[in-house]
Amino acid sequence: MARVNVAILGATGAVGQRFIQLLENHPWMRVTAVIASDRSAGKSYAEATRWVLAGTPPADVAALPVLPLDADPDTPLIFSALPAEVAMERELELAAAGYVVCSNVKSHRMADDVPLLIPEVNADHLGLIDVQRRRRGWSTGALVTSPNCTTTPVVMALAPLKPFGISRISAVSMQAISGAGYPGVASLDIFDNVIPYIPGEEEKLETESRKMLGDLDGERIAWLAATVSAQCHRVPVLDGHTVAVSVALDQQPELSAIREAWESFTGPEVVRDLPSAPQKPLVVCDAPDRPQPRRDRDAGNGMSAVIGRLRPCPVLGYKFVTMAHNTVRGAAGGAILNAELLIAQGYLTGVTV
Amino acid sequence: MARVNVAILGATGAVGQRFIQLLENHPWMRVTAVIASDRSAGKSYAEATRWVLAGTPPADVAALPVLPLDADPDTPLIFSALPAEVAMERELELAAAGYVVCSNVKSHRMADDVPLLIPEVNADHLGLIDVQRRRRGWSTGALVTSPNCTTTPVVMALAPLKPFGISRISAVSMQAISGAGYPGVASLDIFDNVIPYIPGEEEKLETESRKMLGDLDGERIAWLAATVSAQCHRVPVLDGHTVAVSVALDQQPELSAIREAWESFTGPEVVRDLPSAPQKPLVVCDAPDRPQPRRDRDAGNGMSAVIGRLRPCPVLGYKFVTMAHNTVRGAAGGAILNAELLIAQGYLTGVTV
Amino acid sequence: MARVNVAILGATGAVGQRFIQLLENHPWMRVTAVIASDRSAGKSYAEATRWVLAGTPPADVAALPVLPLDADPDTPLIFSALPAEVAMERELELAAAGYVVCSNVKSHRMADDVPLLIPEVNADHLGLIDVQRRRRGWSTGALVTSPNCTTTPVVMALAPLKPFGISRISAVSMQAISGAGYPGVASLDIFDNVIPYIPGEEEKLETESRKMLGDLDGERIAWLAATVSAQCHRVPVLDGHTVAVSVALDQQPELSAIREAWESFTGPEVVRDLPSAPQKPLVVCDAPDRPQPRRDRDAGNGMSAVIGRLRPCPVLGYKFVTMAHNTVRGAAGGAILNAELLIAQGYLTGVTV
Amino acid sequence: MARVNVAILGATGAVGQRFIQLLENHPWMRVTAVIASDRSAGKSYAEATRWVLAGTPPADVAALPVLPLDADPDTPLIFSALPAEVAMERELELAAAGYVVCSNVKSHRMADDVPLLIPEVNADHLGLIDVQRRRRGWSTGALVTSPNCTTTPVVMALAPLKPFGISRISAVSMQAISGAGYPGVASLDIFDNVIPYIPGEEEKLETESRKMLGDLDGERIAWLAATVSAQCHRVPVLDGHTVAVSVALDQQPELSAIREAWESFTGPEVVRDLPSAPQKPLVVCDAPDRPQPRRDRDAGNGMSAVIGRLRPCPVLGYKFVTMAHNTVRGAAGGAILNAELLIAQGYLTGVTV
Repeated sequence: MARVNVAILGATGAVGQRFIQLLENHPWMRVTAVIASDRSAGKSYAEATRWVLAGTPPADVAALPVLPLDADPDTPLIFSALPAEVAMERELELAAAGYVVCSNVKSHRMADDVPLLIPEVNADHLGLIDVQRRRRGWSTGALVTSPNCTTTPVVMALAPLKPFGISRISAVSMQAISGAGYPGVASLDIFDNVIPYIPGEEEKLETESRKMLGDLDGERIAWLAATVSAQCHRVPVLDGHTVAVSVALDQQPELSAIREAWESFTGPEVVRDLPSAPQKPLVVCDAPDRPQPRRDRDAGNGMSAVIGRLRPCPVLGYKFVTMAHNTVRGAAGGAILNAELLIAQGYLTGVTV
Repeated sequence: MARVNVAILGATGAVGQRFIQLLENHPWMRVTAVIASDRSAGKSYAEATRWVLAGTPPADVAALPVLPLDADPDTPLIFSALPAEVAMERELELAAAGYVVCSNVKSHRMADDVPLLIPEVNADHLGLIDVQRRRRGWSTGALVTSPNCTTTPVVMALAPLKPFGISRISAVSMQAISGAGYPGVASLDIFDNVIPYIPGEEEKLETESRKMLGDLDGERIAWLAATVSAQCHRVPVLDGHTVAVSVALDQQPELSAIREAWESFTGPEVVRDLPSAPQKPLVVCDAPDRPQPRRDRDAGNGMSAVIGRLRPCPVLGYKFVTMAHNTVRGAAGGAILNAELLIAQGYLTGVTV
Repeated sequence: MARVNVAILGATGAVGQRFIQLLENHPWMRVTAVIASDRSAGKSYAEATRWVLAGTPPADVAALPVLPLDADPDTPLIFSALPAEVAMERELELAAAGYVVCSNVKSHRMADDVPLLIPEVNADHLGLIDVQRRRRGWSTGALVTSPNCTTTPVVMALAPLKPFGISRISAVSMQAISGAGYPGVASLDIFDNVIPYIPGEEEKLETESRKMLGDLDGERIAWLAATVSAQCHRVPVLDGHTVAVSVALDQQPELSAIREAWESFTGPEVVRDLPSAPQKPLVVCDAPDRPQPRRDRDAGNGMSAVIGRLRPCPVLGYKFVTMAHNTVRGAAGGAILNAELLIAQGYLTGVTV
Repeated sequence: MARVNVAILGATGAVGQRFIQLLENHPWMRVTAVIASDRSAGKSYAEATRWVLAGTPPADVAALPVLPLDADPDTPLIFSALPAEVAMERELELAAAGYVVCSNVKSHRMADDVPLLIPEVNADHLGLIDVQRRRRGWSTGALVTSPNCTTTPVVMALAPLKPFGISRISAVSMQAISGAGYPGVASLDIFDNVIPYIPGEEEKLETESRKMLGDLDGERIAWLAATVSAQCHRVPVLDGHTVAVSVALDQQPELSAIREAWESFTGPEVVRDLPSAPQKPLVVCDAPDRPQPRRDRDAGNGMSAVIGRLRPCPVLGYKFVTMAHNTVRGAAGGAILNAELLIAQGYLTGVTV
């Protein structure tokens, strides 16, 4: 199989950079177009970008010219890490023009006919693509989104517990600074500090989780009928969002049954062999003081959620800690896995694996 | 009034040092004896101590000889910051020998006849001193304890809400490294990291809070009849424990009523004029991103709890963030305020203010 | 003495905030005007400012209206923390209009007739005010500058060594993030990192130090005839610039003579009783692992330089470590001390102490 | 070639763990014995070890029994990360017993007949093995050491400059916390802080550098005839030691000649193809603000030294910044590269590649 050419929208930002880093040497795709704000357009990617990850940009991408936001790249697949206000219109234009757009942006996540996807959790929500194509008159184009970085480890941990009947969820996050992009959080704000507020974050967690844990019911998603409360905090950690979760389960299973559900969780078969799929989507820790973001964020190459400290909760029944790498699984890596699933499922017209 | 001589038990440790720092220039007390492990005994305090706070120890204390653990200091009042296993027996011996012991140690906090005290919250629990003296045959001696550093900002925030009927509490902490003493947390463990486990901490928060929010009923405390869940985490912050709290209130008050209860909270009159009592025990923040430990831990000279982000909780009804300085209000400062109350209430035989 | 009204230019920035914090309750001055960019003008100071220090702005200043950059405040004394490109012209206009301007900005530091001042070190350089007034035709106006924050602890430590004949200086700094203002250094850049480059900083240290350590010779400063090399680094520290210094001294004194010179250094008598002058401008540490920025930056209320680790240097002869609080002594506090000296010396027309 | 069995002495410590991590999947060696203090002996490696690196120990090593310090492992090659006082005697006993010992410990680094080795720099110093075997009566045994972690990036950067005539070196380090092992630096000490003292470190840098940059002259090393001054600091960085270097060069080359020397530096041919040898031992940065430890420490899989900011030094002539990963190139990785060289050169009796 020849590698599929892909474009990165918002390529110079922190998440754009992570896309480029993760796609270096990808077996199915290669970055051939980088698109960013008009301020950057015309420069080479290396010139236009303040690279904030380790090392330097891959040489082949470094030499690419940055295209302006209204460019129509010569690629069938586009990853979007645009600012939300720009993405709102542009992602729709591109899907209408026939591109498959895998977006990491919030703008369209909650739209009725747009899949909000974690492949191991709700691959079947891809059925919405048929709905969106029909409703919107798109032919080869499509728009698929990946969730907020904090929602990700929560939903991955809860998905195997759906059979037990999830009724109430309380999630308190301790989020890494990389989640705010670059320049993002000023060091004077977060140094030796906790910031107990991240605008819009709690709302995302409270809604996205219910959509993703819901069921595809004909042409729509029936959201999970649970109440969800989120409290979000920024802490002085580079990468890896940690979330303390309490949950009420109707069936009141034994702790061992929950652990067994996690251990045996693999996601659907079509997902397991995707290039970016981790061997274990969920890694369950035995040590009482894990997961820890610095030591566990690279589990499964940053694509696993890592869970620990399952114990009874006097208030809701069960509590535990879940953690995932926020710019890999929670952003660029998650969107790449979505794209791999789209390719494997034949949604990319003319491309087969 | 001549200043009361006081001794510090466990004077060389991190909390012992904070006692000494806070008592420098105290109007009612002065440190005249420092007691520590036998390893330190015989040296001067300056020699025996690796001072971990800012600057250097006060000159007068620096010159004091360190006394061994079994010393009977020539002071009517003793502050204890001993290791728990040592405190278990020694604090009782000292109280039996006639000393008033203000302990910051967990060993006796949950004993039926030992007050666990935050003066603004439950000064009336001092009534247990009569009980303990009668039961244990103590004459001038007494044992009073101050709570765990994480429990403190939670209980201070919840005390004014008792009239609304507290039924369920969920508290998720983000705790500073100074809470673990010295050497305490290894930098290799906490750097760029969150540690989602602090041994014994969750149990303390779940029980101490109910005792302190309970009512003195004859010779015992009737604990608050609420279920409490705690999840405790260490984060890379120097001082100041931040706690995200959700709470269910029977009367379902308006948010404004809760805010009003906080704003008007002063504690009993006898407490207000104590030297270490902050002008406002509770500081309520208007800014949406406060409290923050680095910027708010010194409110009220480190003796205020700072509260913010009050909002509805879909799961329990109400949620907010509370924060206090863990080694000031949550440890040495809290115990000093207890001692001031004991002096003001006449529990220190022969000492009047 | 009635307190002198003062204005703060650039009042909403990080250094401007420090001015306001340090002048709260100042015995000789009070802030009555705050001036900032046109974007802020018209709002109250509280509305216009993202306060980055601890707590909240003093209430009286919080209520002041922010004046635009071209405002002529009703105060005889102005502190400037403007961006350098704005300060270049505006500070001169204000001095020409009769204001005494105490600037913390680099723009005019190296001008021949502008004193670059650390009162304990070179108070006599104030003689340049007569020169500048005569040359520039200023009557009551004057312009006095305070040095770069990294230069400060180096020059304070070297001043007492001038009699030994300073010929070569090598200074390697480890600078706090607050030195870059707000938002300043992105957390993604400095977290778990050292940044070995601060634009313009090395040049400042290499030139300002020679001017300040020079001698007033008639109408000009004869710079110190020494070669100076600076290497500047940003490290993950909140406040306090640490500098490792090697120095060659012509007279090759004993280490004890250097220590004695530091211990006995007080600066000229007129400076000693100024309100912001620390009791000891230089604090010499005995502990082998001091100074440390977190533990020593508040020495002398942040106005002392703290020195330690004096030992022979195989290459230049002597080496040691010096540290000072970069936004107190190294910025706002230093400029305030300059103003106090100007008032004490009668340079503020009509104001006496 | 069958993989050579190797033992790790001091396997449970921080450097021991890095050995085990780096040797997982090594093409030439595999860890078959782990040796640690008697406290750990008898347990499995997983039980005995508090793993401080990311993830968990490799499964095959996790199951190994920990052997006591006096064990004679069934391996021809031993890596030592023992405490220095234990290594002093034990390493000699093992070499005398026929083992090839590659030590990362300081105990024997400065012995006349013990190579102190960075393969790219002074591979020819291996000639001392013949000397030590003859003098000490060792047959198959040998003792080779790798340098202090801070010396490493300095010597790697200076080695290509030897032809220019190095006469004076001034090195100021900013060292990562992992250099102190585990538990090592207390978070209360290093958090928001710089510690300007690391016991013994400056002496190591001042002597080891001269030995390594010296020449093998018959049976001894003629040290480099240069004066060296070191000033060592601990900073809040996880991994990667940054060193600001000034150097005097007799020939006073152009900056471009120095850069060219760095760019073309490869080390001897025998080293280039060793499994752990980085493609480029020296990576020279173009960006003015590099090297940075967080972003550059993994260059060459942590085995490259990264250099930047070459510029004139007014005092010594030239200055630059050099950085290397302290627990990879500066510790375990360096010792592994030494062992690879020993194998390639035939010093491991009966083992060929």
